[in-house]
Amino acid sequence: MVNEAQHTCSASCSSKSDGGSSSGSESSKDSSRCSTPVLDADRHERLREKMRRRQDSGDKWFSLEFFPPRTANAAVNLISRFDRMGAGGPLFIDVTWHPAGDPGSDKETSSMIIANTAVNYCGLETILHMTCCNQTKDDITGHLQKAKRLGLKNIMALRGDPAGEEWEEEVDGFNYAVDLVKHIRNEFDDYFDICVAGYPKGHPEAESYEADLRHLKEKVFAGADFIITQLFFRSETFLTFMKDCQAIGITCPIIPGIFPIQGYHSLRQLVKLSKLEVPQEIKDVIEPIKDNDAAIRNYGVELAVSMCRELLDSGMVHGLHFYTLNREVATTEVLKRLGIWKEDPRRPLPWAVSAHPKRRVEDVRPIFWASRPKSYIYRTQEWDDFPNGRWGNSSSPAFGELKDYYLFYLKSKSPREELLKMWGEELTGEESVFEVFTCYITGEPNKNGHKVTCMPWNDDPLATETNLLKEQLEKVNRRGILTINSQPNINGKPSTDPIVGWGPSGGYVFQKAYLEFFTSSEIVTALLKVLKKYELRVNYHIVNVKGQNITNAPDLQPNAVTWGIFPGREIIQPTVVDPVSFLSWKDEAFALWIEQWAKLYEEESPSRMIIQYIHDNYYLVNLVDNDFPLENCLWQVVDDTFELLN
Amino acid sequence: MVNEAQHTCSASCSSKSDGGSSSGSESSKDSSRCSTPVLDADRHERLREKMRRRQDSGDKWFSLEFFPPRTANAAVNLISRFDRMGAGGPLFIDVTWHPAGDPGSDKETSSMIIANTAVNYCGLETILHMTCCNQTKDDITGHLQKAKRLGLKNIMALRGDPAGEEWEEEVDGFNYAVDLVKHIRNEFDDYFDICVAGYPKGHPEAESYEADLRHLKEKVFAGADFIITQLFFRSETFLTFMKDCQAIGITCPIIPGIFPIQGYHSLRQLVKLSKLEVPQEIKDVIEPIKDNDAAIRNYGVELAVSMCRELLDSGMVHGLHFYTLNREVATTEVLKRLGIWKEDPRRPLPWAVSAHPKRRVEDVRPIFWASRPKSYIYRTQEWDDFPNGRWGNSSSPAFGELKDYYLFYLKSKSPREELLKMWGEELTGEESVFEVFTCYITGEPNKNGHKVTCMPWNDDPLATETNLLKEQLEKVNRRGILTINSQPNINGKPSTDPIVGWGPSGGYVFQKAYLEFFTSSEIVTALLKVLKKYELRVNYHIVNVKGQNITNAPDLQPNAVTWGIFPGREIIQPTVVDPVSFLSWKDEAFALWIEQWAKLYEEESPSRMIIQYIHDNYYLVNLVDNDFPLENCLWQVVDDTFELLN
Repeated sequence: MVNEAQHTCSASCSSKSDGGSSSGSESSKDSSRCSTPVLDADRHERLREKMRRRQDSGDKWFSLEFFPPRTANAAVNLISRFDRMGAGGPLFIDVTWHPAGDPGSDKETSSMIIANTAVNYCGLETILHMTCCNQTKDDITGHLQKAKRLGLKNIMALRGDPAGEEWEEEVDGFNYAVDLVKHIRNEFDDYFDICVAGYPKGHPEAESYEADLRHLKEKVFAGADFIITQLFFRSETFLTFMKDCQAIGITCPIIPGIFPIQGYHSLRQLVKLSKLEVPQEIKDVIEPIKDNDAAIRNYGVELAVSMCRELLDSGMVHGLHFYTLNREVATTEVLKRLGIWKEDPRRPLPWAVSAHPKRRVEDVRPIFWASRPKSYIYRTQEWDDFPNGRWGNSSSPAFGELKDYYLFYLKSKSPREELLKMWGEELTGEESVFEVFTCYITGEPNKNGHKVTCMPWNDDPLATETNLLKEQLEKVNRRGILTINSQPNINGKPSTDPIVGWGPSGGYVFQKAYLEFFTSSEIVTALLKVLKKYELRVNYHIVNVKGQNITNAPDLQPNAVTWGIFPGREIIQPTVVDPVSFLSWKDEAFALWIEQWAKLYEEESPSRMIIQYIHDNYYLVNLVDNDFPLENCLWQVVDDTFELLN
Repeated sequence: MVNEAQHTCSASCSSKSDGGSSSGSESSKDSSRCSTPVLDADRHERLREKMRRRQDSGDKWFSLEFFPPRTANAAVNLISRFDRMGAGGPLFIDVTWHPAGDPGSDKETSSMIIANTAVNYCGLETILHMTCCNQTKDDITGHLQKAKRLGLKNIMALRGDPAGEEWEEEVDGFNYAVDLVKHIRNEFDDYFDICVAGYPKGHPEAESYEADLRHLKEKVFAGADFIITQLFFRSETFLTFMKDCQAIGITCPIIPGIFPIQGYHSLRQLVKLSKLEVPQEIKDVIEPIKDNDAAIRNYGVELAVSMCRELLDSGMVHGLHFYTLNREVATTEVLKRLGIWKEDPRRPLPWAVSAHPKRRVEDVRPIFWASRPKSYIYRTQEWDDFPNGRWGNSSSPAFGELKDYYLFYLKSKSPREELLKMWGEELTGEESVFEVFTCYITGEPNKNGHKVTCMPWNDDPLATETNLLKEQLEKVNRRGILTINSQPNINGKPSTDPIVGWGPSGGYVFQKAYLEFFTSSEIVTALLKVLKKYELRVNYHIVNVKGQNITNAPDLQPNAVTWGIFPGREIIQPTVVDPVSFLSWKDEAFALWIEQWAKLYEEESPSRMIIQYIHDNYYLVNLVDNDFPLENCLWQVVDDTFELLN
């Protein structure tokens, strides 16, 4: 994510300036203070403002178009593609509207829900397409209200294809995209940013190219903020179109739609739908290699890169819109070759921010959900306020229940067969569970030769930061301290540190060492004796599935475990160990044993009973070493505990 | 100040305990979160709770009684005595009620205003005496309402002396202290802590000792929380009285009133008023030395110490109340010899907290008023909310105007003649002003042989912390960078550090280097050129008296310049450079040139015109070095500026 907030304001008036008024003073007094230190201007801007800012700064950008998948499994895959492609820094993604697929419904494959997931769970600025043809005003208003409720802020207003052959204009109906634009502005004022489609060769049904340009101008004047074009095959096509638009007074951004050819059949189908003609020179290349997918893709990438270069070099184009066809490789390749794929390791906050407008002010989270951010967002989606930098200010927010562990955006990316290979087709005892945890930490294959790349509490391989603790983690997992979350102590590393850094540059980040694990009651008994020695240094929370809770946390106050100091700003403390939310997390953490692991096995099977036993009898423990400038003492605590047991 | 908040809670239930309910979980969810990390339990307790906690912990305490002075100058002196004697850690002070002195008025010598000053400006837990004899219900209710409004929380309910010789009980009137106790409880419920007087020898007007004990019991049962006794001369007198009280069912704390004999005449007067008899053995000692004040005081200290020791050793006494007669030496001496005068260098926060109940939540202040805390309190007294740890949460609090620089609690402790000796009977140019600043920093006498122990912006000699910067400060003041506030950078010193530490032990404190000064526009011009090189590292605000304001602060956000990290808690950031409040401070800082310095001289005199010139033409500058882990670069900035000028 590119962070633009670092620039300092220029002097507000020169020391040389004359004039006796205290205007400087007054304007400052009137200014509204922001409730949260602005670390990331992006979070507070609407899409059209971001676009403007990028254009002003000369910073080229890209966006990505996806369509809703047909099956729930494909939806899971698409969401992890959003996460991966989101890492390249698209300015936005957009999700097409499939009238035949019940697009406004709550189905996991609907346009609405895919767009909702992109915004809320993947943190992506998202445009939802919407077509108006053959729909009632009430239907459309209903869809728009729902989109707004879900946190969607941008609509691509389209006519859509008429349902039958015999389409006739309806009086007062939605006959053209312009009607939808007007409707959105009438009913929702300036709430949505609106995008409309442009046709570089003219819409196939338009009377003429010129008539189509006039239609486009109508759409813009009705309230559209920017234009994305249909695909085209030559850069001149777009550049001419753009000049023609400007000539008749269209001044908003016009973004070229880029279609990297990825295969013979997909090209043919797209051409058929869009009624475009493929230039002869392209046909000449493709026909001879039509059965060689790799060759066609290479050619497509080559072609797209050179056309994009021409567009960017023209000086008229600031952003490129990619028709991905839900595929990853070709588009990513083009973007990397153009140098606009920007995997910025810098994070505005230690956790990935959500793009819902009401979460703009969110700047603190409990550490427990560090590896399950989507679950955290799901469980806090009803919150109207976020704790606003201090949990103390929040009026005891209640976490939503997490009963449906199979919500597609919370589901493991791995199917059951793979999970069984990783976590064991058959467990022989608690030790075989220890073994699974150990393999996940080491990255070594288990005894059947399978790597353990995820766990019920972590759907991804070990984070780079956790890797710093690998050796110690391996040792303790082998002995039944089953770790699910940890962070090393950090005493003032630069905020640009590639591993632990976050926030604007010029700052310093800090952490208290943290360790969270499941373990047996026998180990807990020894641990508690050891912890007496560390009473003033280590804070602990120890709880079992029944809620029996042992802690030395003072007055149930949150303990800040990650914080940052930045130039000219207040302290940011984005991660806390909060005793109250720990008891909500505890329910989820214990349930994952059953929901994700035990249920892989037959009821009453020995494997299932082993997991059930752990669920019923183990404790969930978290430890914080408050003395962050010293060497982390938590490993010593664990060593002392094992020694006491021997 | 003794900080009790450090203890950690004991385990809330044992790991061994059985029982399947998740009660631990539920009770935690219901718990109210505190809005501010509790650093200092003291701030949140009422007096009777503090007393109870000290008694439970076996920690002996003392309290101090004062009477309102007769003149405004004496009030200034009494306030600085409050500050000095407050440093020894009294549990509370109390201010007597002088019916003849218009005690409820707004005069600077009224009981009400002296008590108000002690609470709000000196941060002392305070009891206001109140008598009811010869007063109407409305008068008394009015006084109590006013006391509540001013933040007073404790009342000593007394009858007072009848006005004339012929006193008669009024039906339904306030005839006895018990009527006042009942009235307070009726009208103000449990808002006030109420104290009543006890007479170890019986009240001189009581029918009998036993009858007086019954009256005392009535007062307690009517709602008094504790008892302070009249003075006495032998410990047995008090201990017998206490046993007799307990025997008839008085169980509240009873605090012995201690009167260190300080002089022959004051003893005679007090004895006359209180109708007590001085034991013969004391008379025998005093009479021969009655003209030797020092000898009498020494004897008085000796006598008080041995009586207090007997009381404390009895195990029945936990606190001692001292009748100071507004004097300092004898009482302080007794307390030090008893070992209960505790000058704890540890501070709960970097600035002295105020004792007004609504300021309990205050945990952040702008750095500008660091040396003028009473002015800050005065200017924010109308605030209903305090920024609550984040200036961002506050709805742009407006600072009250500071027009009356002669409010007695804001006035300089030094009279005009002394100020002239320090700051110059006659100024010869800007350089003689530089000289005054330099002498203040170095502690060396000025050329007329007078030490400069205060400045308009600092009523006290240089703080220990500022001493760390002494050498550098001297150098820059000599050259016309007239410093009024500064702090060194601190990168994680223990919170128990005797110079820069604050807050509970086990924590770490941090600071960004800060420098604030007045300087000429010539130097500002050079400084601004130099600051370009430090753009990303140094934040600055530069303003002249007209309000022309030059800054590179991002978006007018506050910059945290002091913060602390404590075990099991959120980050505390008690001091900020806030751009908005800087513009209020600027008015005050410039006005002090005129109000405190220029006005020492005749109108139109050359000295006055020099100060007026500086006021009209100089800039007020503050600089923050954001890179707190590196060596403070602000001295380099100043050096570069001087170099550029050469």
